[in-house]
Amino acid sequence: MKNIFFTPGPSGLYFTAEQHIKNALNENIPSISHRSKSYVKMHQETTEALTELLQLPDNFTIGFTSSATEIWDRMSENLIANRSLHFVNGDFSKKFHSAVAAHGKNAESREVEAGTHHDLSSVVMDEDIELIGLAQNETSTGAAMPVEDINLLRSKYPTPLLAIDAVSSLPVPAFDFNQLDSLYFSVQKSFGLPAGLGVWTFNDRCLEKAEAMKANNQYHESYNSLLKIAKMAQKHQTTCTPNVLNIYLLGKVVQDMNTKGIGQIRQEAAYKSALLYNLFESHPKLSAFVADKKFRSQTVGVANVEGGSEKLIAGLAAKGLHIGNGYGEFKNKQIRIASFPTHSKEQIEMLVDEINQLDF
Amino acid sequence: MKNIFFTPGPSGLYFTAEQHIKNALNENIPSISHRSKSYVKMHQETTEALTELLQLPDNFTIGFTSSATEIWDRMSENLIANRSLHFVNGDFSKKFHSAVAAHGKNAESREVEAGTHHDLSSVVMDEDIELIGLAQNETSTGAAMPVEDINLLRSKYPTPLLAIDAVSSLPVPAFDFNQLDSLYFSVQKSFGLPAGLGVWTFNDRCLEKAEAMKANNQYHESYNSLLKIAKMAQKHQTTCTPNVLNIYLLGKVVQDMNTKGIGQIRQEAAYKSALLYNLFESHPKLSAFVADKKFRSQTVGVANVEGGSEKLIAGLAAKGLHIGNGYGEFKNKQIRIASFPTHSKEQIEMLVDEINQLDF
Repeated sequence: MKNIFFTPGPSGLYFTAEQHIKNALNENIPSISHRSKSYVKMHQETTEALTELLQLPDNFTIGFTSSATEIWDRMSENLIANRSLHFVNGDFSKKFHSAVAAHGKNAESREVEAGTHHDLSSVVMDEDIELIGLAQNETSTGAAMPVEDINLLRSKYPTPLLAIDAVSSLPVPAFDFNQLDSLYFSVQKSFGLPAGLGVWTFNDRCLEKAEAMKANNQYHESYNSLLKIAKMAQKHQTTCTPNVLNIYLLGKVVQDMNTKGIGQIRQEAAYKSALLYNLFESHPKLSAFVADKKFRSQTVGVANVEGGSEKLIAGLAAKGLHIGNGYGEFKNKQIRIASFPTHSKEQIEMLVDEINQLDF
Repeated sequence: MKNIFFTPGPSGLYFTAEQHIKNALNENIPSISHRSKSYVKMHQETTEALTELLQLPDNFTIGFTSSATEIWDRMSENLIANRSLHFVNGDFSKKFHSAVAAHGKNAESREVEAGTHHDLSSVVMDEDIELIGLAQNETSTGAAMPVEDINLLRSKYPTPLLAIDAVSSLPVPAFDFNQLDSLYFSVQKSFGLPAGLGVWTFNDRCLEKAEAMKANNQYHESYNSLLKIAKMAQKHQTTCTPNVLNIYLLGKVVQDMNTKGIGQIRQEAAYKSALLYNLFESHPKLSAFVADKKFRSQTVGVANVEGGSEKLIAGLAAKGLHIGNGYGEFKNKQIRIASFPTHSKEQIEMLVDEINQLDF
């Protein structure tokens, strides 16, 4: 039985990833030094492919970390001297807030109920907020913020650094990188790679903030502090021996995505998520957790399951179809289904058919 | 042409690693959640295998980081309130010293020339040194400290935490873990795995020190601070999404090493390094960089090459045999050859034959 993983991260590998792993072994990628010319060339190919996919402007740098969790820490240490504001609507946006607070900073949390998202049009904040944290796609609930609303927030509050968690949505949302400063993701979700690599894109405003903090002795020096990451990135290198294999694989998968075309990927994402929400609305035992259609994620669909989700999850698993359980307090009450770029339209159609046929 | 990597890290993959990568893909290891029962079981199997290989006592914990570089930082942040002392004899021992200094701590450096190591029998240090850093195997020079000397240092100075860098020597040296407190390595060297995982073993004295620093507000809180790593390790988990694939591979490779037997691995290491030093002493253009036989590494052999090392390195590369160049100031003047557990006796014999036959 072939297993298909619709879990919202780690998820199924991108459909070309296994072949790229075999190629990497044939090309001895695990044995090349991260200070060698062949590494530098490979690193550059990966960042160039990502720059193309995301349409990153020239003033952005791509840095690598071990995880998105590390990026929360690095922002706490290098971009927030005193105050940050966090739009919390689930466990992952809350974790960024907690990380900043653990660093002894004054981290303000604005919280809305799980399954919803914030009304950014009515936000009012103090002038001394240095960084705003927003989970564009809250993986724990499937609530997503439209890019237009992010741009609106930016136009109202252009001064604070705007840091966007796109861990489980990229490359689907068409971000305008001129309207944000820091955006990050990890590769085991919608990029369909093995875990162990965080990707952090940040612009010159972040570098200026870090320099200013350094000048004021407010900057925490570390082996992977922002300015060191940026300095090494100029040379297409990292501050320490990185997950070389994953940086190679990311480049190859992103090149495949570029070949397919971001337009096609976004069209398919819209179609697949429409299938899922249609299922949630039509099935008598399911209901979409995110009631407001405006906030429904195109990559992570979450539904309440009448009578509990265990039987449905187990029934699908018996057929080799693995979907996610509810997160945290919603465990065994909800299902979470990823429709990432690796998931074909046909796979989502089949999954919907199977759920419709199952007795749960 | 089959390539063989004798580079001192990243090096050749352990000879079973490729098969384990294929098995991992078949078992969907990249798609399992790091909070799932199957992950916990796998993580436990890896740490149990390592505990057996290293003969770790009960009071030691095994934690995972992204690299050994990260471990230098975590020791700086969580184990040194004020003062540390570093036995520097090359670039990697120097980097640990620099990392602690970058954290604003009073890090003392005792330096000897590259290619030598310290006389630990005559060391005198202040009573307020909290942590001693020592590279048991300095990868940049091939100078190694015998375990007996480490134990002697400990008997003279039992109070400071003793932190041992075994990045490129484990599992060959027979450390007595009752005579040290913190020992770390990364997997892309003698364990023959893709880069992107650091392994940190630490004992209860480290936990007590971290707790004391925390109580005194001298502890830097981070997502991967020592006490968090230790707390999650109790549950066979990590603080964030780790390099799951590498933790799996490490377990499998260490199980293979346990099956082979640590005694056999150590016997072969002695034989292989004897072949290399015999070559260095008998070849008219080569000479062992580490003059004092007592300090010669059994896993990384370094030789000066009369007239420069470029022609030799290129000549071997043309035959698919990849050895390391000199490090830093010794680039193009020296060669570095790894004889790690993945390198068979026959491979080292063949390499020696090829070097003897080459005109360089």
